[in-house]
Amino acid sequence: MTEDSPVQVVIVGGGFGGLSAASTLAKAPLHLTLIDRKNYYTFQPLLYQVATAGLSPGEIAAPLRSILRRHQNVEVLLGEVIGFDLDRRTVNLADCEVPYDYLIVAAGAGHTYFGHNDWEAIAPSLKGIEDALEIRRRVLLAFELAERRAVARQPALPLNFVIVGAGPTGVELAGTLAEICHHALTHEFRNIDPARAHILLIEGGPRVLAAYPEDLSRSAERQLKHLGVDVRTSTMVDQIEPGAVRFGNTRLEAAVVLWAAGVAASPLGRKIGVPLDREGRVIVHSDLSIPDHPEVFVIGDMASLKDERGKLLPGVAQVAMQEGRFVANLIRKEILQGAPRFPHSEPEGGNLSRPAFHYHDKGSLATIGRAAAVAEIGKLHMSGYPAWLTWLFVHILFLIGFRNRLLVMIQWAWSYFNYERGARLITGSNSLPGWTGLPNSAPSTPVPQENRSHAAD
Amino acid sequence: MTEDSPVQVVIVGGGFGGLSAASTLAKAPLHLTLIDRKNYYTFQPLLYQVATAGLSPGEIAAPLRSILRRHQNVEVLLGEVIGFDLDRRTVNLADCEVPYDYLIVAAGAGHTYFGHNDWEAIAPSLKGIEDALEIRRRVLLAFELAERRAVARQPALPLNFVIVGAGPTGVELAGTLAEICHHALTHEFRNIDPARAHILLIEGGPRVLAAYPEDLSRSAERQLKHLGVDVRTSTMVDQIEPGAVRFGNTRLEAAVVLWAAGVAASPLGRKIGVPLDREGRVIVHSDLSIPDHPEVFVIGDMASLKDERGKLLPGVAQVAMQEGRFVANLIRKEILQGAPRFPHSEPEGGNLSRPAFHYHDKGSLATIGRAAAVAEIGKLHMSGYPAWLTWLFVHILFLIGFRNRLLVMIQWAWSYFNYERGARLITGSNSLPGWTGLPNSAPSTPVPQENRSHAAD
Repeated sequence: MTEDSPVQVVIVGGGFGGLSAASTLAKAPLHLTLIDRKNYYTFQPLLYQVATAGLSPGEIAAPLRSILRRHQNVEVLLGEVIGFDLDRRTVNLADCEVPYDYLIVAAGAGHTYFGHNDWEAIAPSLKGIEDALEIRRRVLLAFELAERRAVARQPALPLNFVIVGAGPTGVELAGTLAEICHHALTHEFRNIDPARAHILLIEGGPRVLAAYPEDLSRSAERQLKHLGVDVRTSTMVDQIEPGAVRFGNTRLEAAVVLWAAGVAASPLGRKIGVPLDREGRVIVHSDLSIPDHPEVFVIGDMASLKDERGKLLPGVAQVAMQEGRFVANLIRKEILQGAPRFPHSEPEGGNLSRPAFHYHDKGSLATIGRAAAVAEIGKLHMSGYPAWLTWLFVHILFLIGFRNRLLVMIQWAWSYFNYERGARLITGSNSLPGWTGLPNSAPSTPVPQENRSHAAD
Repeated sequence: MTEDSPVQVVIVGGGFGGLSAASTLAKAPLHLTLIDRKNYYTFQPLLYQVATAGLSPGEIAAPLRSILRRHQNVEVLLGEVIGFDLDRRTVNLADCEVPYDYLIVAAGAGHTYFGHNDWEAIAPSLKGIEDALEIRRRVLLAFELAERRAVARQPALPLNFVIVGAGPTGVELAGTLAEICHHALTHEFRNIDPARAHILLIEGGPRVLAAYPEDLSRSAERQLKHLGVDVRTSTMVDQIEPGAVRFGNTRLEAAVVLWAAGVAASPLGRKIGVPLDREGRVIVHSDLSIPDHPEVFVIGDMASLKDERGKLLPGVAQVAMQEGRFVANLIRKEILQGAPRFPHSEPEGGNLSRPAFHYHDKGSLATIGRAAAVAEIGKLHMSGYPAWLTWLFVHILFLIGFRNRLLVMIQWAWSYFNYERGARLITGSNSLPGWTGLPNSAPSTPVPQENRSHAAD
């Protein structure tokens, strides 16, 4: 590398994959630009805690700039990538182009509604901070509107919460919602009983946490039931409409419907212009580069790569982080060895002089609720309290930034002993799709004062 | 009080006044309904910290339900009051009516744009959590967009922040913004220098903090200038347009314009149907009740009441809290004495059998920035560090809820030693009115790689 300008590396996406790559490259002799459409990194494993009012957004997110500020060769750019020009080697934003010598695309995945995009407004999914705040708003508002109906002596609407999809996110949401209804809110309402809320977890497949071994699935289902969650496996949702869900012959009125089913890779994959798998992931070589472009890597939830036994690597943080570090080390090595700048021709089937990525599986953890979790660490299967403590420890350990770690620990310790949820603010509109506190068309109804309170005794 | 149903007290508004009244009444033999259009109480003196990314919303706000949950005779209702029927004694919401025997209206105040309501979208004011988040979004986004312009080698736009109005809120915002630019963000941008941002505080009157003694105003202005704020007193803003402010012969381009000028009482005052003063406050009797309705009280920023020397009581938290407690004690005493239920006729000029409210002024505190404040406590005038420590102590002490208090203390201690702002998330849209990172109509411009970085050395 003899040109006078440093090698330019561009990373698209500041999640687990992108940030691991960025930190690994931070001390290498190159210039790095990290592009994200948000100015902050989100610790996704704790998003469900924001959605269920246990933590504030600021406690699980940190500005990308702030995380990377000590690395003088790293620049952060807030912007939405709209495409790539692989021949001219630029990343295209709406208003400028950023050139690269190496490109790492790590834009993650979102949810798919399997063609029912109209369901999204009715049943939000949990992917970012803003989704989490919207879910929090809906959950808290359901109780408020139910209370208002009761005060106005309108007939009660069933306080049903439906979660579609029993993967890790669906299980976390269901378990934590049950915990809120049965503990956190019990003493706060005078006219409704939050503990009578009904939490329904609907799963199309035969078991919850399908990616886990069968014994842990069974244990997770037991723990969910113990928390008061109504688990329905092998049940397909046919229709979601404002205020209701249909499955089989049932039409269930629901105050809140949450979507935790299908995952789809970021649509940015399509913009790269190379073959994708069925879930929209980019099919990468064993070194995580794309066909004909050894200078372009795709990592994390966007990449489709099989392990030695032909099994697709799962879309989890561990894979993304290891891939980020692998690619970063590979780039750093090539730069230090003075490899020629790309493009240069490559043999069919990838860059054979590069090593292949190997995923080192450290185990899987899924939390269900207070003192409820499952863990698979090698051959060891754990459930309940020990699994939950492991989960707690690992997640506090990995939370980026000392300040956040300390605050989260205090928050958790506090809420563990008090069953309290500290972040219960309803911001935004005071209405729910299809589920009203009171019918707006109804005439103003006086509240009969003498009968409405059991509180004055 | 011999009827079998308990006396019904309704409080409209869960701010300083309403919540003080509610806590005072919590143990009395009555049934209390607190109505607010938000489900949370906001500690308004620290709102500017949310607007300037120092604290998260959850740290200065707590659910009203949670604050009042131990009081079995208190019920909280989320809802927007649309009017009152003083004859039938009901508070009217869109979808129900709540009857009362006693009513306390404490809906606070908002900002007025002096007839220029179109300025509100361009120059938000700081009244609630949602305003604070919008201001935070704009301030942080201005730096991000400026950085993106620099990366794309577009001509720089002036990074001007204009605050209109130098009362306590305007002074806090200006001082804290200066602190952010000169300290918190200094190491985080590679292509712009946040310290070169220009903070302009425009005040129509001759001095900042006009409600304070002159020596403290002078001291506050000195402290502001020391923090790098450009203070312009006796300057009237003529026009606010997207991306710019006009005053005198100047048209200043501005990334962010914030409004901290005129205060106006809640429009609910008009709905009561009794005389108002010029600022829209309800003119109350010396016992804080309204003419002809001794069972209806108006307190806090909504009430217009003069002290013994004929001076209008200021719209500050202390007044609202003392009024809340005064009215609550008065109601409790009347209930315990078995006073007849209203309506009953009253002598002209108020209920002469009731005592008059007296405001006990404990002093005034205004913070300006890091280690900068002014305080007036009786005859004692303080400035700078001692005033700031007093301010810090008082505000932490009054923050409701132990958990929040502890978290805020840690947050503050941390940011004091590290100049760090912990809550710097940009949520919502990535655009600013009239101020673009890059002109959208401009053609896509490649970034010349070799010149754009001073970061790789």
